[in-house]
Amino acid sequence: MVKPMRGAISSRHEADPFVRPSFPSDLDTPALVADADVVERNIGQMQRSMDEHGVLLRPHVKTHKSVALARLQLEAGAIGITVGTLGEAEVFAEAGISDLFLAYPLWVSPPKAERLRSLLERVDLLVGVDGVEAAEVLGRAMRGAERRLRISIEVDSGEARTGAPPDEAGVVAVAAERAGLDVAGVFTHGGHSYRSPGSAAAAADDEVRALERALASLMQAGVEAKSVSAGSTPTAHRSAREPVTEERPGSYVFGDRQQAALGGCVPADVGLWIAATVVSRSPDGHRVALDAGAKTLSRDRKSWMIGYGLLPAYPDAVVSELYDYHAVVDLPPDGSARPVVGEVVAIVPNHVCPVVNLFDAITVVRNGTTVGAWRVDAQSRSH
Amino acid sequence: MVKPMRGAISSRHEADPFVRPSFPSDLDTPALVADADVVERNIGQMQRSMDEHGVLLRPHVKTHKSVALARLQLEAGAIGITVGTLGEAEVFAEAGISDLFLAYPLWVSPPKAERLRSLLERVDLLVGVDGVEAAEVLGRAMRGAERRLRISIEVDSGEARTGAPPDEAGVVAVAAERAGLDVAGVFTHGGHSYRSPGSAAAAADDEVRALERALASLMQAGVEAKSVSAGSTPTAHRSAREPVTEERPGSYVFGDRQQAALGGCVPADVGLWIAATVVSRSPDGHRVALDAGAKTLSRDRKSWMIGYGLLPAYPDAVVSELYDYHAVVDLPPDGSARPVVGEVVAIVPNHVCPVVNLFDAITVVRNGTTVGAWRVDAQSRSH
Repeated sequence: MVKPMRGAISSRHEADPFVRPSFPSDLDTPALVADADVVERNIGQMQRSMDEHGVLLRPHVKTHKSVALARLQLEAGAIGITVGTLGEAEVFAEAGISDLFLAYPLWVSPPKAERLRSLLERVDLLVGVDGVEAAEVLGRAMRGAERRLRISIEVDSGEARTGAPPDEAGVVAVAAERAGLDVAGVFTHGGHSYRSPGSAAAAADDEVRALERALASLMQAGVEAKSVSAGSTPTAHRSAREPVTEERPGSYVFGDRQQAALGGCVPADVGLWIAATVVSRSPDGHRVALDAGAKTLSRDRKSWMIGYGLLPAYPDAVVSELYDYHAVVDLPPDGSARPVVGEVVAIVPNHVCPVVNLFDAITVVRNGTTVGAWRVDAQSRSH
Repeated sequence: MVKPMRGAISSRHEADPFVRPSFPSDLDTPALVADADVVERNIGQMQRSMDEHGVLLRPHVKTHKSVALARLQLEAGAIGITVGTLGEAEVFAEAGISDLFLAYPLWVSPPKAERLRSLLERVDLLVGVDGVEAAEVLGRAMRGAERRLRISIEVDSGEARTGAPPDEAGVVAVAAERAGLDVAGVFTHGGHSYRSPGSAAAAADDEVRALERALASLMQAGVEAKSVSAGSTPTAHRSAREPVTEERPGSYVFGDRQQAALGGCVPADVGLWIAATVVSRSPDGHRVALDAGAKTLSRDRKSWMIGYGLLPAYPDAVVSELYDYHAVVDLPPDGSARPVVGEVVAIVPNHVCPVVNLFDAITVVRNGTTVGAWRVDAQSRSH
C-alpha cells in the first residue's frame, strides 16, 4: 500500500473528469491506446496558443518517439522538433525530418563525435552545451568539419539538474566561439514546474528571468543569440513571452495524470491509456491484479501522487504496487462498483513519457474503433 | 533529494564490496554491460546448488529476455525455462526452446486464446491458473485442441498479489479437470522476500508451507500434482526442499543492488552495470548529472533503499533524482574523490529486470574488453 503524502492528490478528486474510453473488443492486453481525435485536438490547441503568443513551437518528441506524430506536429505549424538523445536525432533524421534541436548538454566521446558528424551531413542540428569544458571537447571533435556546428547554451532556471548559471552564459559562449562553434541561442527547462501542483507559474517566471539574464551575459560578452528557448508542458503557455522565441513542450500531445494535476492539461485532454485485463481477484474482493506491471506502467510516481496510475472507471481504486507483469489494485471496502476478473480497464499513466518508451507501437482509436497504429520508432534510443 | 527511510541501507555500507568494473574505452553511453565471467559463474553456482538440493531449476527468463542466456542456463542443466507473458513464450519458442512454464494466472481473451493454441502446436507449455473462472475460460478456449492443455495452480504464500488460497487449490483443480484441462502442478512465488532485508528465510518457509497445504488440498480432491514449484532469487536456496520439486529464480544471473541487500547474492556476484557519462557538474561541485535517466535505470526503488542505483567507485554518492535522460547524483560535501565531467561511471541497478527491458542488447565484456553482445530478444514483450 502506498502511503499518501501530505498534500497528496486523492484519486477521487482527480478521477471524475477523466474520459472513460471504450476500447475495441479484440484488443490484446496490456496495450497502449491513444484516441486520435484527442491527440489531434491537443496538437492543434498547443500550436494555436503558441501562434497567439507569437512564439515558435518546437515539440519535444521524447514523449511519443513517433515519426507519424512528429509529422502531425510539423503539419500543424511546428518549426522543427526537439530531441533528447543523439539516438532520437538519428531516427527522426532518417525519416526526413531535418530541423532538430538536441536540447541536452552533450558530452562528445569519440563514438558520439562520429555519429554527430555523420548526422550533420544530413540535417540542421542544434546541440546543447552547458559548460566551458564540454564546449571545448565539442569544438575539438568538430575540427575539420565542413560547416561550423551550431550550439545553444543551456542555463539553469531553478531545476538544479543541468545548465550553467545564467550569468555565466557569456563565459560559455566565448569559449564555444573560440572552440570554433557557432552560438545560436540559449535555452532552459523549468522542470521545477513538476515539483508539486501549483509550481508552474513561478517556474515559468523563473524561465523568463533566467533567459533574460543569460541574454544580458551574452551581450556583455559580445555574442548575439537568435533562439531563446524555454519549455515544459506545464510552463509552455506561461513563459511564452519576451524574450522567449520558442517553446519545447512534449507531454501535451497525450496528457497524463501528472499534467492534469500540474495544470499542464485538463483531465479531458488526456488521450492515452494503458488497457489492462483483471487477471485475479483476492478472496475478500478488496484487491485485484491487472496484467500491466512495471514493464508497462513504469514506476514513475511523484511524491505527491497516490498509486501508479489512475482508473477513470474506478476513481477510488489505488494502484498500490507494481511487479514486472502485475499491478495490484486496492479497492475501497464500501459497496461501490468493482472490476470483475476478465474485465478490461483503462489506466491513465502518471507520466506518459517512460510508458510510451516501453511499447513498440500505440494502438490508435477513434470512437472506440481501431483505425491504425503509431510506431514508437525511437523506442529505447536512450543513447 | 530522496529521504532515507527508517532502516534504510546506507550507500557506504553496501558499496565497498561491489566490483568496480573497467569498461572498454570505445563504449558509447548509456550502455548496459555484463561481465561474462561473472554471469557464467552465477549460472553455474545456482545450478550446482539446485543439484545439491535435488531440485530442478527452471530459471525465469524475464530477467534477461535473451535466447543466448537461456541457452547457457539450459546447457548448465536447467530443465526448461519460466516465462511471464505469452509474448516471452513466443520469442523463446521461436528460438527452439520447447519446455516452457508460463508462471502467470493467464486470462485467455479471444486474441490470447488464438496465440496460445498456435504456441501449443510447437512447444510443451505449462500455463498458470489461479481461480475457477479462469480455469473455465481457459478450458472453453482450448476445446477441440489436439491435446489437453497442462496447467499449474498458483497459490498465494503470503505475497498477496495473485494465487488462490492454498486450501482452495483442490477446488480450482477439480474445476480445471472438468473444463478439460490437465492439472500438472502447483506453484507459488514468495515475493514477500523482497519486502525488506531479512525477509527471505521466512518467505521461503511460507512457500514450502503453502505448497504443502496446496498438495493436501489437491489430494483431498483426488488430484495428483507432479510439479511443485517455488521461486524467487532470495528464496531459491532456502525453499529447495520437500515437497518442492522445482525452483524458478530469475535475477541471480546478473545480481543487482536489491539482491545483494536481500541475501539473493553477495555484492561480488553482481555482473551487470549501466555505464553512464558525467555530462554536467553543478557550480559548487556537489552535484553531477549523468546521461542515464529513468529510461535507462528505471525508477525501481524499494522503500528501504536510498537512490536509484549505486556507484561502486563513489560509494557515498546518491542517485537522488531521475529524469527521462538525466540522473542527478548528489556528492558528499567532504573532500572524497568526485567524478569529473566526461568520466564514464558504472551504476549497479536497484532491480535488474526492468532495466534490461529498456535495452535491445547487452554489451558483453571479459576483463574489460568487449567480446560480443547478448540480444534482449523479448524486449517489451509484456503482452
